[in-house]
Order: sequence, then C-alpha cells, then structure tokens
Amino acid sequence: MAKILVIHGPNLNLLGSREADVYGTVTINEINAGLKKFAASKKATLKIVQSNHEGEIVELIGKAKAKFDGILINPAAYTHTSVAIRDALSAVALPTAEVHLSNIYAREDFRHTSLIAPVVTGQIAGFGKMSYLLGLEALLSKLMKT
Amino acid sequence: MAKILVIHGPNLNLLGSREADVYGTVTINEINAGLKKFAASKKATLKIVQSNHEGEIVELIGKAKAKFDGILINPAAYTHTSVAIRDALSAVALPTAEVHLSNIYAREDFRHTSLIAPVVTGQIAGFGKMSYLLGLEALLSKLMKT
Amino acid sequence: MAKILVIHGPNLNLLGSREADVYGTVTINEINAGLKKFAASKKATLKIVQSNHEGEIVELIGKAKAKFDGILINPAAYTHTSVAIRDALSAVALPTAEVHLSNIYAREDFRHTSLIAPVVTGQIAGFGKMSYLLGLEALLSKLMKT
Amino acid sequence: MAKILVIHGPNLNLLGSREADVYGTVTINEINAGLKKFAASKKATLKIVQSNHEGEIVELIGKAKAKFDGILINPAAYTHTSVAIRDALSAVALPTAEVHLSNIYAREDFRHTSLIAPVVTGQIAGFGKMSYLLGLEALLSKLMKT
Amino acid sequence: MAKILVIHGPNLNLLGSREADVYGTVTINEINAGLKKFAASKKATLKIVQSNHEGEIVELIGKAKAKFDGILINPAAYTHTSVAIRDALSAVALPTAEVHLSNIYAREDFRHTSLIAPVVTGQIAGFGKMSYLLGLEALLSKLMKT
Amino acid sequence: MAKILVIHGPNLNLLGSREADVYGTVTINEINAGLKKFAASKKATLKIVQSNHEGEIVELIGKAKAKFDGILINPAAYTHTSVAIRDALSAVALPTAEVHLSNIYAREDFRHTSLIAPVVTGQIAGFGKMSYLLGLEALLSKLMKT
Amino acid sequence: MAKILVIHGPNLNLLGSREADVYGTVTINEINAGLKKFAASKKATLKIVQSNHEGEIVELIGKAKAKFDGILINPAAYTHTSVAIRDALSAVALPTAEVHLSNIYAREDFRHTSLIAPVVTGQIAGFGKMSYLLGLEALLSKLMKT
Amino acid sequence: MAKILVIHGPNLNLLGSREADVYGTVTINEINAGLKKFAASKKATLKIVQSNHEGEIVELIGKAKAKFDGILINPAAYTHTSVAIRDALSAVALPTAEVHLSNIYAREDFRHTSLIAPVVTGQIAGFGKMSYLLGLEALLSKLMKT
Amino acid sequence: MAKILVIHGPNLNLLGSREADVYGTVTINEINAGLKKFAASKKATLKIVQSNHEGEIVELIGKAKAKFDGILINPAAYTHTSVAIRDALSAVALPTAEVHLSNIYAREDFRHTSLIAPVVTGQIAGFGKMSYLLGLEALLSKLMKT
Amino acid sequence: MAKILVIHGPNLNLLGSREADVYGTVTINEINAGLKKFAASKKATLKIVQSNHEGEIVELIGKAKAKFDGILINPAAYTHTSVAIRDALSAVALPTAEVHLSNIYAREDFRHTSLIAPVVTGQIAGFGKMSYLLGLEALLSKLMKT
Amino acid sequence: MAKILVIHGPNLNLLGSREADVYGTVTINEINAGLKKFAASKKATLKIVQSNHEGEIVELIGKAKAKFDGILINPAAYTHTSVAIRDALSAVALPTAEVHLSNIYAREDFRHTSLIAPVVTGQIAGFGKMSYLLGLEALLSKLMKT
Amino acid sequence: MAKILVIHGPNLNLLGSREADVYGTVTINEINAGLKKFAASKKATLKIVQSNHEGEIVELIGKAKAKFDGILINPAAYTHTSVAIRDALSAVALPTAEVHLSNIYAREDFRHTSLIAPVVTGQIAGFGKMSYLLGLEALLSKLMKT
Repeated sequence: MAKILVIHGPNLNLLGSREADVYGTVTINEINAGLKKFAASKKATLKIVQSNHEGEIVELIGKAKAKFDGILINPAAYTHTSVAIRDALSAVALPTAEVHLSNIYAREDFRHTSLIAPVVTGQIAGFGKMSYLLGLEALLSKLMKT
Repeated sequence: MAKILVIHGPNLNLLGSREADVYGTVTINEINAGLKKFAASKKATLKIVQSNHEGEIVELIGKAKAKFDGILINPAAYTHTSVAIRDALSAVALPTAEVHLSNIYAREDFRHTSLIAPVVTGQIAGFGKMSYLLGLEALLSKLMKT
Repeated sequence: MAKILVIHGPNLNLLGSREADVYGTVTINEINAGLKKFAASKKATLKIVQSNHEGEIVELIGKAKAKFDGILINPAAYTHTSVAIRDALSAVALPTAEVHLSNIYAREDFRHTSLIAPVVTGQIAGFGKMSYLLGLEALLSKLMKT
Repeated sequence: MAKILVIHGPNLNLLGSREADVYGTVTINEINAGLKKFAASKKATLKIVQSNHEGEIVELIGKAKAKFDGILINPAAYTHTSVAIRDALSAVALPTAEVHLSNIYAREDFRHTSLIAPVVTGQIAGFGKMSYLLGLEALLSKLMKT
Repeated sequence: MAKILVIHGPNLNLLGSREADVYGTVTINEINAGLKKFAASKKATLKIVQSNHEGEIVELIGKAKAKFDGILINPAAYTHTSVAIRDALSAVALPTAEVHLSNIYAREDFRHTSLIAPVVTGQIAGFGKMSYLLGLEALLSKLMKT
Repeated sequence: MAKILVIHGPNLNLLGSREADVYGTVTINEINAGLKKFAASKKATLKIVQSNHEGEIVELIGKAKAKFDGILINPAAYTHTSVAIRDALSAVALPTAEVHLSNIYAREDFRHTSLIAPVVTGQIAGFGKMSYLLGLEALLSKLMKT
Repeated sequence: MAKILVIHGPNLNLLGSREADVYGTVTINEINAGLKKFAASKKATLKIVQSNHEGEIVELIGKAKAKFDGILINPAAYTHTSVAIRDALSAVALPTAEVHLSNIYAREDFRHTSLIAPVVTGQIAGFGKMSYLLGLEALLSKLMKT
Repeated sequence: MAKILVIHGPNLNLLGSREADVYGTVTINEINAGLKKFAASKKATLKIVQSNHEGEIVELIGKAKAKFDGILINPAAYTHTSVAIRDALSAVALPTAEVHLSNIYAREDFRHTSLIAPVVTGQIAGFGKMSYLLGLEALLSKLMKT
Repeated sequence: MAKILVIHGPNLNLLGSREADVYGTVTINEINAGLKKFAASKKATLKIVQSNHEGEIVELIGKAKAKFDGILINPAAYTHTSVAIRDALSAVALPTAEVHLSNIYAREDFRHTSLIAPVVTGQIAGFGKMSYLLGLEALLSKLMKT
Repeated sequence: MAKILVIHGPNLNLLGSREADVYGTVTINEINAGLKKFAASKKATLKIVQSNHEGEIVELIGKAKAKFDGILINPAAYTHTSVAIRDALSAVALPTAEVHLSNIYAREDFRHTSLIAPVVTGQIAGFGKMSYLLGLEALLSKLMKT
Repeated sequence: MAKILVIHGPNLNLLGSREADVYGTVTINEINAGLKKFAASKKATLKIVQSNHEGEIVELIGKAKAKFDGILINPAAYTHTSVAIRDALSAVALPTAEVHLSNIYAREDFRHTSLIAPVVTGQIAGFGKMSYLLGLEALLSKLMKT
Repeated sequence: MAKILVIHGPNLNLLGSREADVYGTVTINEINAGLKKFAASKKATLKIVQSNHEGEIVELIGKAKAKFDGILINPAAYTHTSVAIRDALSAVALPTAEVHLSNIYAREDFRHTSLIAPVVTGQIAGFGKMSYLLGLEALLSKLMKT
C-alpha cells in the first residue's frame, strides 16, 4: 500500500479567494477531497500538508524518506526561488511529482524557470485541480511498476 | 463523444531503439495502444499521426478545428524551435495538452524552453509513456467539464 | 513586364478565422485578389503560393532566380526561426519585400527579431492587408527604376 | 476608521546598531512611534509586526484581507528574493505601500530589482524614517478617496 | 480631407550629402515634393517639419491631436533612443506610420531596436524615398477606412 | 524659508488627456495647485517648470544650485534615457526627490531602470498626484532637519 | 566495405551560382564527383542526397542505422536551427562528420553556434570542397580502426 | 576565550544519507565532534545550531553580536538565494568564515554564485569535513591576532 | 590655416564647481584659454561652443562641413546616449577627436560604452584639461599630414 | 616544396597520460611521426614545435612569414583565451589550419568559442590524431591549388 | 613523507608593497617561511616557486605528476583568465588546493569567476597569509587519509 | 629629469608589414625614434621594450617602481585579456598612459573592452603613431605638475 506525502506550498491556503482568473475557484479542501478519493480507490494513503514556510517544507521532505513512498508537491512560489527545497528533494531521492494549477509558462518570465523540476520525476502544469490528480496517478503508477 | 488528434513529433518513430537511458524502451506502437485503450474506456476516438515534418504538423493542426475537440501533442525537438507550430495551435485555439516522455528540465539548457507551452492548456513531462496517458486524461476531463 | 513571386508563409491559409484581434478578418483570397488587381494595373504578373513547409519555401525561392524579377514574402512564423529561407534569399539575390499583417514589434519579444530582414530590400509591418499592397508597389517601383 | 497592517521585514529589528552609514541611527521603536502618532492624527489604527521569516510574513498578509484596509510593508531583503510575499500581496489585493529606508537604487545591483513593486500600489525609497511616514500617508490618502 | 503631420528626425536635413551608400542621393526637398504631390492626388494636406531636437518633436506630436488625422514620422536616430517621442505618440494615439530610408535591420545592432515601433500603426524600412510615399499611402488608406 | 524647484519632464503637459488608465485624469494644473497649497502651508516657495527638452532641464538644474534648496523632479521619459540630467543632478548635489505618477515597476521592462534614481535622495512612484505631494513633503522634512 | 550516407542540407543545390565570395564556384555535382572518386579509391560506397527539408533529413538519418556505417553531413542553414536533426543523429548514434564549405566562425554571429556539433564525431569547416573530402576520409579512417 | 557560533544551514541534518557522491558519508554529529575537539584544544567555546529556516538563521546571527566573537557558517542552499542572511551578517559585522563541504564551483552553475561570500571574511569550499575545521581555525587565528 | 570646431557637451559649463574629485577644479574658461593659446601657436583658428542640447550639437556638427577642417568634441553625457550626434558626425565625416576629462573606463559601467567613438578618428580620456590639448594637437597633426 | 610550421599548444606534451577519455592515448610523438610520414609522401617539409608559452607561440608565428608556406596549429587552451595568437595569425596572413583532438563543441561551454577560428582558413575538431593529418592535407591541398 | 609543490602566481613577488588595503603587508618570504615551518611540523617537504609566466606555471604543473603528491597554488590574476593552467591541473590530476589572500568575491566582478576552481579539490579565499597555511593543511590532511 | 618606461605589447614588432589598413605602415623603429626625439626635447629619458610575453611585461612593470616615474604602454592584444598586467599596473601605481594605434572602438566587439584602462591614468586610441607621442606628452605634463 503506497504512502504519499502531499505538500501544498505558500499561499495555496488562499485558493478560492485568490485571483480566480489565474487559479480558478477551487479550494484547497476540494483538491484534498479529490486526492483522498482517488488515493482510496487505489488503496494508497496520503498525508497532506500546506505550509507557507520554506524551512518547514524542507523538514517535511527531509523526514519523508523513512515514512513515504513518493511525494506530490506544488511548490508554488518556492518553485522559482528555493534551492533548499530542491536540495531536500535530491537528498531523499523519492519518486516525486511537481504540480501546478496554472500554466506557469503562460505567465511572467520568472515563473518559467523551476528550480525544482530538474530533480523530480516529472512536472504537470496548467490543468487546475486536475494537475494534482494526474500527479498522484503518475506517482502511484510509477510505484506500482517498481 | 470526444475526438482527439494525437500528434507525435520528429524522431518519435525511433522510440525503443533511441537512447534508452533518456526515453526508455517503450515503442510508439505501445504508446498508441495504451492511448487507444484508454480512449475506448472513455468513449473517445483518436486520430494518431507521427510526423518528422514541421510543415506537416502545422497543417494537421490547421485542419483540426473542424474535426477535433482537442489535441494531444508531443512536439519533441520542435518544442524548442517551432514558432510555426505555436502559431498553428494559437490559430485553432483547441484545448491542447503538450506531453514529453523525458523530464526536459533535467536535460540540456535549450530543452528548458518550450515555444509551445505558453499557448497550450497545460504541459506534462517526465513520466515516460504515462505522460501521454495523463495528457489524454486531462484533455478528456477538461472537455467533459465544458 | 515585371514578374513577381508572392509567398505566404505558414498558417496564413487560416486567415479570417485566426485570432481576429491580431490579424483582422481579411482572408488570404481577399489579399490575393487585391494583389492581382494591383499587379494588373501595373502590367505585372504574379505567381502566388502559400506554404507551411520551410523546405518548400526554400525551393520556391531557389528556383525563382530564372523566372521572377522580385519576391514578395510574408514569412510569418519562419521570420523568426528560418536561416534556410534567409540563405535562399541571399543566394538568389532578387529584390525582395518582407511584409507582415500585424505590427510584429508590438507583440511577443521573440517576434521582434527577423532573420529575414537583414537580407531583403525592405520590410513593411502592421498595416494589415495594406502591407502586402505596399510591398508589391515598392517592388514594382524599384524594378521600374532599375 | 482605516486599519493598516505594518510589516517590517528581516533584520529591521537591528536598526540603530546596523550599518549606520546605510540605514541611519533611527531604531524600529522610533519608527513605530512616529507611525502611531501619525495614525492617531488621522484616526487610523495600526497593527505593527516585525518578522525575519518569509513564511510568517506570507501568513500575516494572507490573513490581512478580512482585518485590514491596507498594508504598509518594508520587505527588506525579501524585496529581492521573495515570490511568496509577492504572491500573497497579489492574492489579498489590498492597497499596499512598499517602503525602504535606504535608496536601494544607489546600492548593489541586486537591490535594484524588487519582486514586490510590480504588485503594490506604489513604492517609496531613500527617505529614511520619512519613507514609512510617507507610505502611511499615501495609503490613508488613497483609502479616503475610495 | 485628411490632414497629416510629417516629421523628419535629426540629420535628415543633410540628405543628399550624407553617406550616399546608406541613404542614397535623394534630398529632403525631393522627398517633400514627392509627398506633397501624392497628398494632392489624394486631396490630403500635409504639414512637414524637420527637427534635430527631441523636445521639439515631442511638442509637435503633443499638439498634433487637435490638428491632424495622422502622423508620418522618420524618427531617424531618435528611433533607438527616445522614450519621450514614444510617450508622445502613445499620448496622442493618432494613426502613425514610422518610416526609414535605409534597411535598419541590415545595419549596426543598435539600429535593430525601435523604441517607436511598438506604439505606432506600422513600420516601413529600406525602400529609400519610397518608404515615405508608402507610409503616407498607408496612413491615408487607413483613415479612409475608418 | 525653503525654495524648491519643481520640474515636470516631457509629455506631462498632456496629463488629463493622456492614457487615463495609466496616468489618471489629473491635470498638471491640478498637481501644481496641490503643490503650491502644500508649500504655502509649510512656508516654502516653489518654482514650477514643465519642459519637453532634455537640454532645458539640464540647464534648469545646472542653475539651481545658487537659487534653490531642493529639487522635486518627475523626469518622465527621460528617467530611462538621460545621463545628462543625471549628471546635472550629481553636479549640483541638492536634496532631490524623484517622483512618478504611475508605478513604473508594473509597466514595460525599460521603465524599471531609472538612470536618475542612483543620484537622488529618494524616489516615490505609483501614487498618482499624491507622489508629488509626498515628494515635496519629504524634501521639506529633510531640509528642516539639516 | 563501408557504406556512407552523404547529406547536403538546404540551398546547397544552388552552389556555383550562390554567393561565390562565400561559397566559391564549385558545384554540388563537382563535390559529389570528388566524393565518389575518393570513396571508390577506398572501396567505400556512398548514397548522396540533397534536401531542403528538415523533416526529410530527419527521416534519412532515422533510417540510416540499418543501412549505413557512417554519415557525412553538411547541415547548412539547419546547423544553427535544427534540434530535430540533432536528435536524429543522437538517436542513430553512427559515426558522423559535420562539414562546412565556408569558415562559419568568420561569418555572422548566429553561424558560430552549431546545434549539430555536440552530437557528432567531429566538425570540419572552411576548406571549401576539401571539407567534404576530409570529412569522408575521417569517417572511413575511423571505421577502419573500429 | 573565543566564543564561536557555528551554523549549519538547510538539509545538513541529512548528511551521511544524502548524496554520498557529493557530500561524502560524514554525519553532522561527526563534524560537530571534530569542531568541539578542535575548539577545546584552542580553549574556544562553540554554540552549534542546525536550521532549515532562513528566518531562524537570520535571528541567530542578529543576536550573535553581543554573545559571540565570530561565526562559522555553512549556509548550504541559502548561500545562493538568501539576501536576508547576507544582510544579517553585514549587520552584525563579526569575523565570519563561510564553509562548504563540496566544491560548489564544480557543480551546477547556480551554485557558483554566493550571496554570502562578499560580506564574510573568507570562504572555504571542497575539503569535506575538513572545510569546517579549517574555517574554525581561520576564525580563531584571526581573533587571536586582533 | 586649419579651422577647428570645439564642442563642449552638457554640464561642462559647470566645471570647477562640479564634483571636483571626478573632474578636477579646472573651469571651462581655463580649458578654452589653453586651447586658444595652443591653436594660436599652430596658426589654427577655433570656434568654441558649449551646449546642453543634443539637437543643438547635432546642428552645429551638421553645419560644420563647409566651415571647419576638424572637430574636437567632449560629448559628456551624450557620449553614452546619443545616436543623433553619432549620425551627425558620420554625415559630415570630418577628422574628429573625442575627448574626456575623466577616465570614463574607471567609472560606472554605462560610461564604458561610447556611441561616438566608433565614428571618430580617435579618443582621449582621463588626462583632465590635457585631454583637450592632446585632442587638438592630434587633429592639427592629422590635418597637416593630409 | 611546401614548408609547414606545426605548432602544438599548451599541455599537448602531456598527451598519452592526460585524461585519456577526452584526448585518447596517442602521444605527441606518435602524432608527429604521422605528420612527418604524410608530409614526406607529399614532398613537404615540417617544422614541429610544442610550446606552453603564449608569447613563444606569438613569436613563432610572427617569424613564420618569411620561412613557411602555411601553419598547422592546435592552440589547445589558448584557443579560447589568446587574442595575441589571433593577432599574430592575422598579421602573417598565411594559410592556416586550426586543429583539435577532441570535439570542443561537446565539452564545457567556454570551449565552444575559438578566438582563433575567425582568422584561419579552416578548423578541424574531434577526430583525434586524424584531425592533425586532415589539417595538414587541407593545407597542402590549398597550397598546391594556389 | 608528502611532497607538495607550492606555486605563487603573477605579481605575488610584489606582496608587501602592493596595495596593502587589499593584500595586507605580509611578504612572500613571510608566507613561505610560515609554509615551511608548518610543513616541517608535518614532516612534509615543499618546493616553492613564484612565477609571472602562465607558460612556466603550466610546465611546473605538467612535470609535477612524477615528483609531487599535491599542489598548493595561488593562481592570482591567472585564476580568471588561464584555461592553460586549468588544463594542466586537469591533466596531472593531483590533489590541489587553490588559495587567495583576498576575498575575491568582495572585489571586481571579473574576480568572482575562477577558471581553476572547478578542477581543484577545494578553494580557500580571504584569510590573508592564513589562506596558504589552511590550504597546505587541507592537502596534507587529504593525503594522509588516502 | 623624468624617466619613462615604454612598453610595446605583442605583435607590435611586426608593424609595417602587419595589416596596413588597420595599423598603417609605420614601423616600431619609427615610433621609437619619434618618442626619443620628443623625450629629448623635454629632457626626459626613455627605456623602450617590446615583448610578446605577458609574464615578461608583468615583470617589467613590477620592477618599474624604483626606476621609473611613469609608464607608456600599448598592451596590444593583452589589453583585452590580461588581468596580470592590470594587477601589475595597480601594484606599482605609477602614472600610466595606455595607447593604441588603431581606434579599438571601431573594430571587433572584444576589442571594445580594456582590462587595463580602469587602472591607468588615461587612454589614447586611434591616432596612429601620434597616439604614442600624445601619451608621452600627457605623462610628462602630468609628472611636471606633480
């Protein structure tokens, strides 16, 4: 039974009320409900955390090695600025899916570069809440194959 | 019943024998079989084309508007060099998923920039054959919502 | 009697239905009709071709030397990516007018650089269908002077 | 009666003892006293926080929407590195004044770029303690007009 | 009856004696005569000014709104350095054609960037004296359509 | 009694009719009236000049040393292109406030760099007419302290 | 007996009439005759193709693995723009010599970067027709050693 | 008796299990034991802290002035992204040695730039655990000289 | 008898009182006296002008062809920003010496690039008042040789 | 009878023991023997020098004009850093072949730029010892044609 | 007994009289005495050379393989310009410590990039004479471990 | 009596036969004769050296402090590549004039940047042999003033 750590990065707690033209009207609770339902259907368990703190996310990842089989992460703003989260992901070396609600490549230039992407398994961006579900599916599919 | 145009870009006909460390050993036929099976389960129909010709891909997309509900494309090498394919996708303005077998962000610098990404719905990279399946799922999910 | 080769680059066959806010609602047939009418009034003959294929455009130009007195070209997307078309134009060294419907300098950054412009006689951009007519007029005026 | 959230970013607790040639000898308490006095004269209330933690600042801003009418922020070092604070400010979309004690444009190159400025109402830099007072005045003036 | 303001930028008074290999041997008087003749044939009136002063050109444009229907401008050297002229053109928002005698894209790198082009209707470069005539024709054609 | 030179740069005479979405509907006369009223309340005198000429602004500043105690300047377009105005400000070395109506950091890239800012006391941008009033207040406050 | 695929890229069919100062007066037929003579002397066989189409060149390379022992290619304009040809060469991984008639490092800046060079065995540029002969010799020499 | 604050930055708690090819197999406890032994031999005392939080490190440094004579810091990932830690170090202005286990100049490009180095006494990189010992030695040597 | 036009660019009228650490304490009158004395000794005549106006300098140069044998110019701030002055110098094509009081290569980065230098005979920088005298000597020496 | 100067740049004396994965196991003596044998077969004479000194190489080239008909040079590390060797080659203007054992375009970025290539006849890279032989052949072939 | 080659790069013979604010007042003899004393205490022997010649340093390193166990080098100015010294160090592949007296990261931009650092064991900068002693200690410590 | 060290950099021994269109036909002996004659007239003595070796030039400068009052240097190719010569000049801190025969700002881009200029008194370029004489005059004039 696969155990996945789900990390929502900074400001994702504000979803629903935050720039609906960019992020849609889905809330973090709706995303989490969707993820849990999908996980249940695949007999996987999830631990879901939202954090606005880079250091906290670094610690969550650092402790993940012993407890989880994979990581689903939306690093949000830290995608573009955090070498620390990148290093944490490299250190634990778990299968990891990086997801984004919006199409980061259709936004400001500085959002086109992900410090995280080069060290994860893969990246999914632009499909709204579906990005999360696809990321979880990708992880579980990969874990089953191994 | 959704109709999706699936486009494999240049050199993807060589999958299986082509740099297995980067692209894995999956063949284009295996990818297509997987896509068809998934489409069938969702009652969608697919037209699948592989082309090494930028102009041919431009034409396929240009004619897609009247015949398809969405596009699933792995632009391969043209991801990084083709304004013509980008313009074609902008012109038809169909829901489009851009997919990549490999994690393009973990490879050479010139592969980090996609000319295609800013005009598609979303992008999925790094999950091997699964990238295609997730892309198709994302498209069908989006079409059902609309 | 001047003979002019008119080349419409990729996606220009989609005019009319393609992003009307950028390209207007004029169709390629309307542009061609305008060009023919103007040519007739100046006793010039036109050969008009639309192609989505870089290689095809290269060949059209390569064969133009013996048959035409000048070239009117809207290289569209290939404006920004084709060294091959540039080299073909340099090789035949005919009077050439590069035209664009939209003001490429008011759009995305990558559209501000034309690989074609440095090797043509002149460039006209931003006047919609009128860009083509002005380009033809410039060519014919130049040919008459020589 | 306007309610303003005042945020002092990292290291501003060290004012007075910190590089007096750059920041002057004013202390954070003196700045706060000045702000409170001015607010009182305008019948506005202030909540003043100093934090060295990017995540904490993100959270303060995220919760500000319901409680405050505007934000006065000196993001200090995070001015140049925090997409997370930028995103938080975009998300709550309150009138915001960004202030700096020193003239950041007369210092090291990396201090010339503010990730925060493009999403705030306006920016004031270089007037020492006065920058804060002017920022508060600008905010209150703006709120009165609306 | 359309009224057009024609502005010749710096050093264009020297045409004829100035680097004939770049600018040809046409004089400013010959260009003006050609423009007037063409305008007369279209029942348009022209006011033609040559100025070497950025500020003077800014003022000419600033006052144009009430008096003219369009602007034909060869900003010459100021093409590449004047935000002030750009801002003036944006402010009056009249149909404007930017013209150049030489093909600026075949010259030094710094001549490839026009600060003016992004805010005008269109740009014509490289056709010598004909560039002016085509620009005037484009403007009149556009004014007639509106 | 402080004497302040107020300089409005190019195109600011057009305020009110100029791109209202960027600059608002305030006119230069209204700004000047506001400044004079504020100055009067502080027993300061103002000399206010608007100029579209870089050279004229250079001369105004060059002569300011003997006659004024400070300078309030909105260099407008010259903010981004004038080394001459920067050098003039360095030469006279008076307390100087640089102000902008719009938030230049939320506009085109070339507006993010001020050649003026590194040599002035401070900069205020984005608060509309209020930017001027705050700039004047900052200057007067600074002069009183000295 | 070594079998070599020789590919002439775009516009090389125009050799002889094309910019003699850059490319000399040699024709493609003369180059081919020279190559065949040399190959015969080494008991090697050649298949020689000229193509102006990027996609066609991609296909020629893609099918080369089973039929040829090495590739001699002058990618011409595609040297600087084709990731697709680069990927095809990487995919088949045959010994490959990249040749150029002119010294591309003594020409325009954009010709100094070859997308092809990093994935071939070696590159020869600047020796005119001799570049081809040396490239063939290098390939045959390498094949004999293996 | 010198008092030194030793700061281990983010992810250094994972040493031993983290990418052994880059960081070796030494653990943070072994490093600390080595440092303490060396300090004891020099009659110096150490306070050793590991933190994954940028803000926490900023605070540790901010409070160091009164309590310590020098700082030994491995900023790890924050080396390349933290202006806040740089500003804290500038603010306290204590003798500081920046150390790195790996040779950051032999790794990814973004690791070649240290935001910290310009404000510390010196930097030591690439000698594994020995980097820490040398850094401590350098600090104590410097403190003895003063 | 050689006739030389001497042009002092913007802010040079302020010499003596302007940043003595950069420009020294020499005044423009002292420089002019020195130039006149030297010219007299060489039987040359000088016309000396100081202008803060780019357009005025453009006009002075434009009219110089018929009246002068050479130009001695200190373009000051316009060195780095004026394509118009560069174009004027190219247009008249007289022997020209560009001089600078200060060593512009030892100052801010933007002062390291001269738009003027590529079109003049030579450049002299850093020798204070002596730069002018050497420039005049170089011009007269060159004129005597021709 | 052609006389060729062969120059081996810095560190080429170490061939054989030096990074065999990059340079192979061939020694400089084996290369020289191969060159001599080939020269003998063509009735050419060689002078072969290896030098680690930029200045020495400059002098060898400077004196070559009177004594040699062509130069075969592997500038090694100086390829990327020596303007002095470039200038020497320009000064003597002899037919010159630049050769490299390794494919410099498949190595570190700084090795992709040759300061030498723009002033030589042609460049050969990546064919190991064969690069030298081909370079010599190219030179002799060129000399015979002249 | 470890044998270490110590190389002082260009201008280090001038220490003591050379810019004391950057390099301190220590002389090369004092540094050497310190190194020898330390080496003696560790039963290591040193050969110490100072050279201003890049080629000489290349040769010293090239011959070091057979005679030394490690290299201690302060490449001084060549740090930033010498690919030849880098290649020599790569070729001999001995444990190497790069040291700098000053903190090169706190000086001019061009001193922030070391061409040497990526191929050595580690780098130490900023601790004055102590940098050398620490570098020697690091080397000896490393050699003892192997 | 002033003593000046005159240094001719690499390839200047070839003057006269070297690219006459760039450097003219003057020989180094003619330059030296001119310098000596001028020095004699000013009662100054010269030591003149030409060297192709960077290290040798570094040493000449390093020893100059005790023996000379100023340095006249044409660093030629080393102008653009030698930090070592720059550092030597900084170290001895003598009045120094950098001279160039050609106008380096009208040549290739890499010649526009001088590593030497920021540390010398001044630079003279483009006046041929006269550049040297003016440089010597500037030095002597400066020495007399001190």
